[in-house]
Amino acid sequence: MSPTTTIRIAIDAMGGDKGPAEVAHGVYLAARASRQVHFLLVGDPTVLEPALAHLKPPCENLELVPATQVIEMEDAPATALKRKPDSSLVVAARLVKEQKADALVTIANSGAAMTVSLLSWGRIKGVSRPAIAVPLPSLQGPVVLIDAGANVDCDPNNLFEFAIMGSVYAEQVLGIKNPRVGLVSNGEEEVKGNSLVKRTHTLFQQSMQSSPPFHFTGNVEGRDIFRGDVDVAVCDGFVGNVILKTAEGTAEMIQAMLKQELTSQAWKKLFAAPLASSIRGLGKRLHYSAFGGAPMLGVNGICIIGHGRSDHVAVANACRAAERSAQHTLIDTIRQRICDPPPPPPAV
Amino acid sequence: MSPTTTIRIAIDAMGGDKGPAEVAHGVYLAARASRQVHFLLVGDPTVLEPALAHLKPPCENLELVPATQVIEMEDAPATALKRKPDSSLVVAARLVKEQKADALVTIANSGAAMTVSLLSWGRIKGVSRPAIAVPLPSLQGPVVLIDAGANVDCDPNNLFEFAIMGSVYAEQVLGIKNPRVGLVSNGEEEVKGNSLVKRTHTLFQQSMQSSPPFHFTGNVEGRDIFRGDVDVAVCDGFVGNVILKTAEGTAEMIQAMLKQELTSQAWKKLFAAPLASSIRGLGKRLHYSAFGGAPMLGVNGICIIGHGRSDHVAVANACRAAERSAQHTLIDTIRQRICDPPPPPPAV
Repeated sequence: MSPTTTIRIAIDAMGGDKGPAEVAHGVYLAARASRQVHFLLVGDPTVLEPALAHLKPPCENLELVPATQVIEMEDAPATALKRKPDSSLVVAARLVKEQKADALVTIANSGAAMTVSLLSWGRIKGVSRPAIAVPLPSLQGPVVLIDAGANVDCDPNNLFEFAIMGSVYAEQVLGIKNPRVGLVSNGEEEVKGNSLVKRTHTLFQQSMQSSPPFHFTGNVEGRDIFRGDVDVAVCDGFVGNVILKTAEGTAEMIQAMLKQELTSQAWKKLFAAPLASSIRGLGKRLHYSAFGGAPMLGVNGICIIGHGRSDHVAVANACRAAERSAQHTLIDTIRQRICDPPPPPPAV
Repeated sequence: MSPTTTIRIAIDAMGGDKGPAEVAHGVYLAARASRQVHFLLVGDPTVLEPALAHLKPPCENLELVPATQVIEMEDAPATALKRKPDSSLVVAARLVKEQKADALVTIANSGAAMTVSLLSWGRIKGVSRPAIAVPLPSLQGPVVLIDAGANVDCDPNNLFEFAIMGSVYAEQVLGIKNPRVGLVSNGEEEVKGNSLVKRTHTLFQQSMQSSPPFHFTGNVEGRDIFRGDVDVAVCDGFVGNVILKTAEGTAEMIQAMLKQELTSQAWKKLFAAPLASSIRGLGKRLHYSAFGGAPMLGVNGICIIGHGRSDHVAVANACRAAERSAQHTLIDTIRQRICDPPPPPPAV
């Protein structure tokens, strides 16, 4: 965190399927809700100024920072930092690096966000692989899925770090006390899992013997996640991405089928009409936007990545997640928990 | 297939959460619907006889085959064949081996079903690893997910065989012409995937160059599966199990939330009540029972595994899947496609 007391959040305004005006709208909402936070909206002034002019009354804690370039989805993330030094994402990341901002929010391009934040800020000491944590909905509140897609091939040590980082995020930002950490597997029994999961299970269990850096509760199946049986679900980034996309796909399919069922006959439409807001309410409970974006954990700074389809509400929630992250000692706590070797087991 | 023209299906009646009477009920329904098929209900006569006595009128094509033992979930699958030679599953598998039945249906214990069918019948020549194929619901009809849990660690050749077996099943049993085969990955682009998926993608692409044994359409994400963008989704058994459980968990969560939303106020209950059957109809469309159980492909015989929570409708559908499988040349076609080396590429 910066030495100043006011939290400052830099937002890359040029990403997202809905365009910069939607991002500006979301940041405006966040600025109205959090007067004590200073928002730096980074992007093309010719687009952002008219977008902000529409939003009344103006916010004093929302400042425009010009950036002339935009990183496109086609741009190779690895070279974007050098090739587009004046892009909104690079400028916003630089504000954090130069301690002019305490957190970065960006929408959509997670590959570029990962690369730019990693190359600009470096990793937290002791972290070998930064990871993306996604808060998923469950019947008992959010569950942090980590890694949701940054690292497709992992070893048990990577997953150990993910477990620590996910725990710290669940604790500090989501306010979950002593979060229960589950290892994603194809069965709850200890003997279940592929080679990676079995070796990771052994490592997790060993580490639980003395001053564990997180609260491991055993293997967890895909179903248990959505029941809220754990607070943090740990897996490699390939499996995490499959979980995320499968859940999205299933939810979309069910919503489409529900619509078909409830509009198949005129009388059904009549009864369903007054319930439309309830059904939309369900959609909202499931919606990624309610959970405020996915933190990139393990880089030496706070980076929140919003979903590509984020609307202004989702953007505002992503800003709130950045604010909560900056209020706490996220980076320092991750560093401590990963670097501090656990004390030796007590002498017999 | 047996040399006789009547199809005979052996059903292990002693599995499933709902007990043998429910299985017997399902088989009775199947027997009523398919008069030309002969059903062999294998299990404890002291339980099954009273269950069948309730079902009127009796069916001539439903025969009881006694078996005194039951394989429990606690029994190690590997030793069940030797330790419980008179168990319902082992007796039913033996009927197939001795060509007294053309297909086996069993509920719930997929580990035991896999082991017993593999040890009793062996593998189809050329298949290195049998796999479980699960028909999933999608917006455009069923999608075959293979492997859904039999093999947690795989190599590209295994996945190549899964693609062939899944294709043949989709074609012959689900009636899908020239099924589109997708490789599950974390993105549609060719460069996406973990190490296994990237190597498999290369193998699939190479094999498409001359007389391909299946129709490969590229990588597929978890979301695309439920949109029905492919007919067969290929992955290792760990990832397949995660997809299956995630989809189940998401659907359960949404149904629970929908119920909460629609019963939160008295007036909502009033409007929702006439729609209850539509909402249940949705549940049915999503329900595993509609798709008739999961075939174990690659073993030298037809084995359909029903979901543990199968009710009589699900059991009847599993019997129907076994019947359709036995009507076709499933085993022979898989053997041919896997064993026949593709012709050499044309000379330039």
